[in-house]
Amino acid sequence: MPNRNRLLRCVKPLIMISCLGLTACATLRGTGDMGVVIERATGSVQIVETSSRSRLGQVTGLGDLSHASIVYSRDERYAYVFGRDGGLSQIDILQGKLVKRVIQSGNSIGGAISQDGRLLAVSNYTPGGIKVFDTQSLELLVDIPATYGNEGKRSKVVGLVDAPGQKFVFSLYDAGEIWVADLTEPAKPQIQKFIKVGNQPYDGLITEDGRFYIAGLFGEDGLAMLDMWNLDKGVKRILNGYGRGEQKLPVYKMPHLEGWAMAGDYAFLPSVGHHEVLVVDRHTWQQKKSIKVHGQPVFVMARPDGRQVWINFAYPLNDTVQVVDTKTMQIIKTLKPGKAVLHMEFTPRGEEVWVSSRDDDRVLVYDTRTFEQRSSLEMKNPSGIFFTSRAHRIGL
Amino acid sequence: MPNRNRLLRCVKPLIMISCLGLTACATLRGTGDMGVVIERATGSVQIVETSSRSRLGQVTGLGDLSHASIVYSRDERYAYVFGRDGGLSQIDILQGKLVKRVIQSGNSIGGAISQDGRLLAVSNYTPGGIKVFDTQSLELLVDIPATYGNEGKRSKVVGLVDAPGQKFVFSLYDAGEIWVADLTEPAKPQIQKFIKVGNQPYDGLITEDGRFYIAGLFGEDGLAMLDMWNLDKGVKRILNGYGRGEQKLPVYKMPHLEGWAMAGDYAFLPSVGHHEVLVVDRHTWQQKKSIKVHGQPVFVMARPDGRQVWINFAYPLNDTVQVVDTKTMQIIKTLKPGKAVLHMEFTPRGEEVWVSSRDDDRVLVYDTRTFEQRSSLEMKNPSGIFFTSRAHRIGL
Repeated sequence: MPNRNRLLRCVKPLIMISCLGLTACATLRGTGDMGVVIERATGSVQIVETSSRSRLGQVTGLGDLSHASIVYSRDERYAYVFGRDGGLSQIDILQGKLVKRVIQSGNSIGGAISQDGRLLAVSNYTPGGIKVFDTQSLELLVDIPATYGNEGKRSKVVGLVDAPGQKFVFSLYDAGEIWVADLTEPAKPQIQKFIKVGNQPYDGLITEDGRFYIAGLFGEDGLAMLDMWNLDKGVKRILNGYGRGEQKLPVYKMPHLEGWAMAGDYAFLPSVGHHEVLVVDRHTWQQKKSIKVHGQPVFVMARPDGRQVWINFAYPLNDTVQVVDTKTMQIIKTLKPGKAVLHMEFTPRGEEVWVSSRDDDRVLVYDTRTFEQRSSLEMKNPSGIFFTSRAHRIGL
Repeated sequence: MPNRNRLLRCVKPLIMISCLGLTACATLRGTGDMGVVIERATGSVQIVETSSRSRLGQVTGLGDLSHASIVYSRDERYAYVFGRDGGLSQIDILQGKLVKRVIQSGNSIGGAISQDGRLLAVSNYTPGGIKVFDTQSLELLVDIPATYGNEGKRSKVVGLVDAPGQKFVFSLYDAGEIWVADLTEPAKPQIQKFIKVGNQPYDGLITEDGRFYIAGLFGEDGLAMLDMWNLDKGVKRILNGYGRGEQKLPVYKMPHLEGWAMAGDYAFLPSVGHHEVLVVDRHTWQQKKSIKVHGQPVFVMARPDGRQVWINFAYPLNDTVQVVDTKTMQIIKTLKPGKAVLHMEFTPRGEEVWVSSRDDDRVLVYDTRTFEQRSSLEMKNPSGIFFTSRAHRIGL
């Protein structure tokens, strides 16, 4: 094939030359060490890489990115950004550009990608329900309205996650229901509904093996748990004491459930309202102990090897991050990364962690063993940090 | 930056043209859905992708690939192939070409990549020890001879894995020792030696959180286990009955430890010599039950969600694969993929599994839920299958 070879020789130097600029860099590179950081205030994202800890480019024009989250295509090339304004944006992180953008609803709260990578589900507040899109064309494949009761009311949808077997699981805030949708045939979703699961489920998570779906309840204490291996047993209530309690303490921010740390036999949970991290036995779902921390925890995240959990806090104590050793269950480090620490993301094998400090306009990178600061990257009001390794994980 | 833009416009069509050929295709693409399959007899590998299940190119000239294994760079662009002849080859899977190749010893048995992706360790039989290389230059950084006893003898090294904190763990077959090497400063490795761990450790694994290192013993029954969180407690013996037993049954192939399936609270282990898979409680390391299977198991591998384990078998019963449901602990499927099934690899989120059938010269792809065959790819004597998602995992 001499023709092809000649072409290749000719293309190579051009490819290298084309990559002197920062944005839209179409250089050949692996995507396993890449990531995207949300710049909330400007409706933009920064594309980054974790090997030499650098920014690769910025993509703008993404709308309202408060509470925005991201999933990745199974080849780790495309980031799908779910915006608060109902915008769904597909970004090519290799070329550093927006590929497609649709406004799919009036008000949305995150999404998920199917096990096979072919379907994107978005959960919506208004009108309440989920919509399922083709990951390549962003074409709408099916609309699942969250209709409940006898009057055709529609509920806000929250806590949407993917599960094995082309399933999506989500909670209906107004209805107090959890739905499991099997999208094996996208045009004919098979939906199993669990009703009366509790008052106002406000967020959900699924364990990393895709087995246990857990919804937090805003309207009462306790959590609703669904065992995906035993759906016929229905939803169980666990951790009855978990929540705001009878005194209804002031809660500055309901902690994210996605941030729960599952480490070995224990789950580490943000307490609601209290300055505590709760340690819970994952088999019995009984509380084993609580650890006093700096403030009201927001994210309690496990390093990938489970030996540490890192915690950030709600306003006004949100300048601090603490680290707990899961063996001794003691705080081993208190860091002050800057003003308004909003999110953290570990590198896939956990040697470093990236921390966004919104009001200092920077993302800090720490060595998780020495706690040394390895890098500081300037960004405009950074919030969520998402690395491509999420593409390979269940329920993220 | 008008210059750059003009260049980009000019390069794009050329890039597309350059990719009509199969090999050395320098097209822009994400690397998260890619993989490499060893073609043992021809000293070559096939580069594949799992999204549309296709071959992307072949790389030849890799020497003796019996028992070859692969690790990936942290950006998922480069595959490092460890050959039996001591060859260490770096392959650019985007360009489909061999980048570098060194013969680093006379006889080697696999390798590992450090947590930060900067170091490659290779374990050698002759001369016995490990050598550590820079992942970018393949330059030798440090040589750690496996010297034991008082006479300066050197042992074969087996069961080499990476562990959190820039560590490598490995076993000395002739010495009956396990060593933990901290390579934080590559030029000054800190080595902790555990002696008298048992007779002839022949292989090792580390749990996916990097906490428990377990070595199989060829010379006696039982397994040697090291808790990396409690190194001061030393090596413990577990599963005393595990092994060939007093009768020393004929064993066609010592099962790989890497193939142990850790699923929820249980580990599923290949029995040695018997037609059984053992189910062991991961907390007590006591055997809970055994499952009768088709032959002597070689690999017992968990689907990423832990709901299934897939098993292949030793010669002469190696035309079969069986699937156990880990909830019921029953065999739910028996497949006949072809002659000499050597290896299996799940897609990162487990919806499909790739199975190599060496003597049929093909790799089969199955849907893990319906067991339907999705694809069949021709390759020359395929053996090991390795997907890039391994880059993000501890201990692989």
